[in-house]
Amino acid sequence: MSDPAQISGELYGLGVGPGDPELLTMKAVRLLKKADIVAFPTAKANGGHAKKSVAPYLTESHQLLPLVYPVTAGPVADSSSYQTIMQNFYDETASEIADLLSAGKNVAIICAGDPFVFGSYMYWHARLSTQFNTTVVPGISSILAAPVQLGKPLCHREDTVSVLPATMDEDQLVERLENAGSAVIMKLGRTFPKVVRALEKAGKINNAYYVERATTENERILSVKDVSANDVAYFSLIVIPCETPE
Amino acid sequence: MSDPAQISGELYGLGVGPGDPELLTMKAVRLLKKADIVAFPTAKANGGHAKKSVAPYLTESHQLLPLVYPVTAGPVADSSSYQTIMQNFYDETASEIADLLSAGKNVAIICAGDPFVFGSYMYWHARLSTQFNTTVVPGISSILAAPVQLGKPLCHREDTVSVLPATMDEDQLVERLENAGSAVIMKLGRTFPKVVRALEKAGKINNAYYVERATTENERILSVKDVSANDVAYFSLIVIPCETPE
Repeated sequence: MSDPAQISGELYGLGVGPGDPELLTMKAVRLLKKADIVAFPTAKANGGHAKKSVAPYLTESHQLLPLVYPVTAGPVADSSSYQTIMQNFYDETASEIADLLSAGKNVAIICAGDPFVFGSYMYWHARLSTQFNTTVVPGISSILAAPVQLGKPLCHREDTVSVLPATMDEDQLVERLENAGSAVIMKLGRTFPKVVRALEKAGKINNAYYVERATTENERILSVKDVSANDVAYFSLIVIPCETPE
Repeated sequence: MSDPAQISGELYGLGVGPGDPELLTMKAVRLLKKADIVAFPTAKANGGHAKKSVAPYLTESHQLLPLVYPVTAGPVADSSSYQTIMQNFYDETASEIADLLSAGKNVAIICAGDPFVFGSYMYWHARLSTQFNTTVVPGISSILAAPVQLGKPLCHREDTVSVLPATMDEDQLVERLENAGSAVIMKLGRTFPKVVRALEKAGKINNAYYVERATTENERILSVKDVSANDVAYFSLIVIPCETPE
């Protein structure tokens, strides 16, 4: 399919931030303009969180390439069959993208938040960046956006920050929270009641805030104490901010 | 001085990222354009790290307001007299900015990295945001930029991330590093030899990378093992990335 004399296209791994299209960087917007193809990971259930963030920057000349996950992960998905299915998915889609790059197309893979902080872009990066000219652009992770929307600084001076997955064992979570200064708890969902218990045991519940879909029109911000466990979104996290700076 | 009928200006707390001017967000650039005054914290020794990042966006209509720190902190500065001097500095400069806002001027305070992640903007925010219409814009923290420049993802799947100050006690640092998955060590400087010992004791030295002035023309990236303790910059950090994603 590809012309052997063809110069390969470039791969862009673009962090597109938490949701608000204005939180893309100038660099991400510039490289989006250079892209012929905009690839975006998406679950069957929705149209792709990252795609919404770039919508204002897409033109008719962009070809969209949905990368549809074969399974939806949910917060607990560490079985070996899940890993195999996902590895095959990344292999197959990476091969498809490699063909496009070899045919001289510039391909942007967009990624909600930051590509190297829990971003799915990294799996394509591992498969493609050694073969093709690649530029990765950091993005505003929800870890940064949530404290801003909450109006409370995450960390200052000699603070430590712990980013913890809600899927941790309850006792471990309590121990980590007890020793933590500031903290962010990611990957909420069915694990929410356990996380609330851990926050109570660690004495952090009164300084814990739930931030859902930060910077989007569906943003919700509540004290963790006021959140119903039935009403916890996947695109959410808990912030334990630092003391008010003096 | 101010006209009592005057409508107050707006305060913008703008994260301007790690150094590369292209890593400002679209929102930060838009609000910079709306600002009459661009205030930037600066040490006497240099012209302000944040100011360089916004230089391409400044026009002749911008009035620059340097906020010159009365003392340079260095990595270890927790004496009570240091705190008092700094609080007076923030009080006095906040009062100066309040006068400008009351006179109807829009004031942007720019901040290297992210304003709510170790950003000095938060001290002015605490003093001004309750009185004036305020917008905070998150920025690309060096915590996100360094792994991208290094070419190694920081965290994936169920990883934890620990952000630790180099000023921690050595034993504590060893313990935290032993329990850490991915980690970032901030506020390097004279503490560097201690940090290297802690990394060795925790068995992390072979996966530890030194990243200085990420995304600037003076960027330096080395294995921590190859760094001379005499040659450690303040705008630097250590990254312990996650395993290569599969």
